Amino acid sequence: MTDTYAAKGYGARSIGFGARIGLLVVDFQKGFTDPRFSMAGSPLIEAAVQRTAELVTVARARGAPVAACVVGHPKGASPHYWKHDGVLEDLIEGSEAMDLDPRIAAPGIDFTFVKTGASAFFGTTVASFFAKRGVDTVCVTGCVTSGCVRASVVDSFQHGFRTMLVDDCCGDQEPGPHADTLRDVGRRYADIVTAEDVIRRLMANEGA
Amino acid sequence: MTDTYAAKGYGARSIGFGARIGLLVVDFQKGFTDPRFSMAGSPLIEAAVQRTAELVTVARARGAPVAACVVGHPKGASPHYWKHDGVLEDLIEGSEAMDLDPRIAAPGIDFTFVKTGASAFFGTTVASFFAKRGVDTVCVTGCVTSGCVRASVVDSFQHGFRTMLVDDCCGDQEPGPHADTLRDVGRRYADIVTAEDVIRRLMANEGA
Amino acid sequence: MTDTYAAKGYGARSIGFGARIGLLVVDFQKGFTDPRFSMAGSPLIEAAVQRTAELVTVARARGAPVAACVVGHPKGASPHYWKHDGVLEDLIEGSEAMDLDPRIAAPGIDFTFVKTGASAFFGTTVASFFAKRGVDTVCVTGCVTSGCVRASVVDSFQHGFRTMLVDDCCGDQEPGPHADTLRDVGRRYADIVTAEDVIRRLMANEGA
Amino acid sequence: MTDTYAAKGYGARSIGFGARIGLLVVDFQKGFTDPRFSMAGSPLIEAAVQRTAELVTVARARGAPVAACVVGHPKGASPHYWKHDGVLEDLIEGSEAMDLDPRIAAPGIDFTFVKTGASAFFGTTVASFFAKRGVDTVCVTGCVTSGCVRASVVDSFQHGFRTMLVDDCCGDQEPGPHADTLRDVGRRYADIVTAEDVIRRLMANEGA
Repeated sequence: MTDTYAAKGYGARSIGFGARIGLLVVDFQKGFTDPRFSMAGSPLIEAAVQRTAELVTVARARGAPVAACVVGHPKGASPHYWKHDGVLEDLIEGSEAMDLDPRIAAPGIDFTFVKTGASAFFGTTVASFFAKRGVDTVCVTGCVTSGCVRASVVDSFQHGFRTMLVDDCCGDQEPGPHADTLRDVGRRYADIVTAEDVIRRLMANEGA
Repeated sequence: MTDTYAAKGYGARSIGFGARIGLLVVDFQKGFTDPRFSMAGSPLIEAAVQRTAELVTVARARGAPVAACVVGHPKGASPHYWKHDGVLEDLIEGSEAMDLDPRIAAPGIDFTFVKTGASAFFGTTVASFFAKRGVDTVCVTGCVTSGCVRASVVDSFQHGFRTMLVDDCCGDQEPGPHADTLRDVGRRYADIVTAEDVIRRLMANEGA
Repeated sequence: MTDTYAAKGYGARSIGFGARIGLLVVDFQKGFTDPRFSMAGSPLIEAAVQRTAELVTVARARGAPVAACVVGHPKGASPHYWKHDGVLEDLIEGSEAMDLDPRIAAPGIDFTFVKTGASAFFGTTVASFFAKRGVDTVCVTGCVTSGCVRASVVDSFQHGFRTMLVDDCCGDQEPGPHADTLRDVGRRYADIVTAEDVIRRLMANEGA
Repeated sequence: MTDTYAAKGYGARSIGFGARIGLLVVDFQKGFTDPRFSMAGSPLIEAAVQRTAELVTVARARGAPVAACVVGHPKGASPHYWKHDGVLEDLIEGSEAMDLDPRIAAPGIDFTFVKTGASAFFGTTVASFFAKRGVDTVCVTGCVTSGCVRASVVDSFQHGFRTMLVDDCCGDQEPGPHADTLRDVGRRYADIVTAEDVIRRLMANEGA
């Protein structure tokens, strides 16, 4: 953090894990992870998918609720003015680009849902899902860090959750915007953690 | 935009103004604009306040709905895990830090509201206000660009509005995060415009 | 309306149609319309489906946006504490009980979406869909009047839309709660209209 | 409940209290409780205010979070098409009709907030407030039962909370719509309880 922000009190506090973790996986769907699709092909996203698959497996084994979303919309009817061609052309309901990456789906997901916008919380009931399960700490993974992950982190914070951005489980098209996102959200809304931090916590929590 | 994003279809489309503009002013309150408060003092924010005051005056004269929010919370009861000391310590209901900057208030504001989180849309009814007034294009101004302005832009987009980030009416603590924000949102969610662009459009629209 | 409410100013105003109608069809899915399912079988709902199918046909022909939802949830993962056995046991994603009634689907639907709760607006982006299409008047049809229809009417009102409850296009399990709903919402949030009123308006609006 | 609804599985389950209660007080403000205002004067509301004041006192003593809202809007700028004259004419920000009833305010309120619509959750951050405090059970009190209380109950349910409508802490203009509300929500979204039930539970929960 630059001195200007620190001098003004940004990032002065950390949040810490609470009593019950929920895991949120954002948009690890073929449209971003299978090179046949126009927005896919980032090695940063590929690494994040692999690490997230491991984290999902541990979370499931420890009884922590796991929610995963995919982004898309009915044909011709996005409710939003997206500037991406890829979102508008590839991410149509029923298309393979909206299928969850099989590595993420394999361990089992408690709540799989579709979103149409950037944030996993906007126009969805994932906040209700986590609240009903007693989650107080939401660990956010997925792609793209500077887009839908960031929007989801902000909304998780806004919903009153302790929010953790899991650095090595989030991927972007390039490293710069990933780093900029961590800088911005880490001084305002979320702690920046690693998959190892979350796994250690999941193993320590009795019955997750 | 770097080639990687452009090659993947980001920013391939622009949005354009619609038929009816609404102006949203985010957090131009003394806590950010009056140097007596810990988060204030940025010359970038000061310039943005001055330019926004001019824009509010034109919008009001042309009949375009103007909404302005301030951020804060009841004493001891923020519903969010903020990492800022400044937000938690200064922005308490009833405190002067939550007063709208007088230069913004002077031309008159149609809908003044309080928010507790980052986005001007989260936990508020400003989307309903704009919808009821027939607004299809929301022009976003305010501070801080890489925090509450960005969150508000994402939500404006998510609510189905054509969204314009007004570059010279938004200020940050430093220029880097301001520029990074424009880069990220300009290829996904919003057009980047100037106050002059908005004024020209307001003057062209009959009866705004 | 009883004198007590009228004397206190309830229902003193009517709302009226605006410039652009959107049609919302709530939960006309097999779980409520096909007698093989436990919550189906109401002749009031059957009549409302038939009338709504006619209204959808006219709306489509006149270019008015039509949105239709079904209610349900992933297996074992409703985010809500429903008290219905039927909702919890029948309305599981992938089950036939979540299929839109074919009579409603036949004319074509612009935006088909899933909800998990009572209101068609809660945890969905149908408000964004209507906002993006310039809708200012939402006409609500569907079932069950005293449950999901009512919740949707309240939310349509809350989102800033002119809201019309279309009496003969809404059905309940019994007539009493249907009538009570019209009484309560008609003095607060919505005008009570008939399909004929909406059709007349759709025919009058040029290009809908 | 009539046989038709019961036969179709409505109300087949009860919800029960969870581990941590939050208390929500809806619209016990002078506009509804002080006979100088047009919508006030109901003896049913008066009784509910008195009983709620007792409940707030116990909740505060036991450390259960208490949130209270008032309804209103900036002058001339309701974001909703209300059909009440009273709401539109009396409930203007800064007016005495928006002051919390002093009997409710006296024990202290943890989170006091303004809403513009019917539900205490719509366009507010009270769900975040409860989530951050670890609340899993929201007990709803206030007025008017068939209007804002009912809308708040539906939204509490939608947010994933166990929801209790506290019968003797809710008041309406007349008894009929109060009873109809309990019938409708009690078979779908909420348990119907008394203040005594909530007090007993608050006393039993260690440290609330």
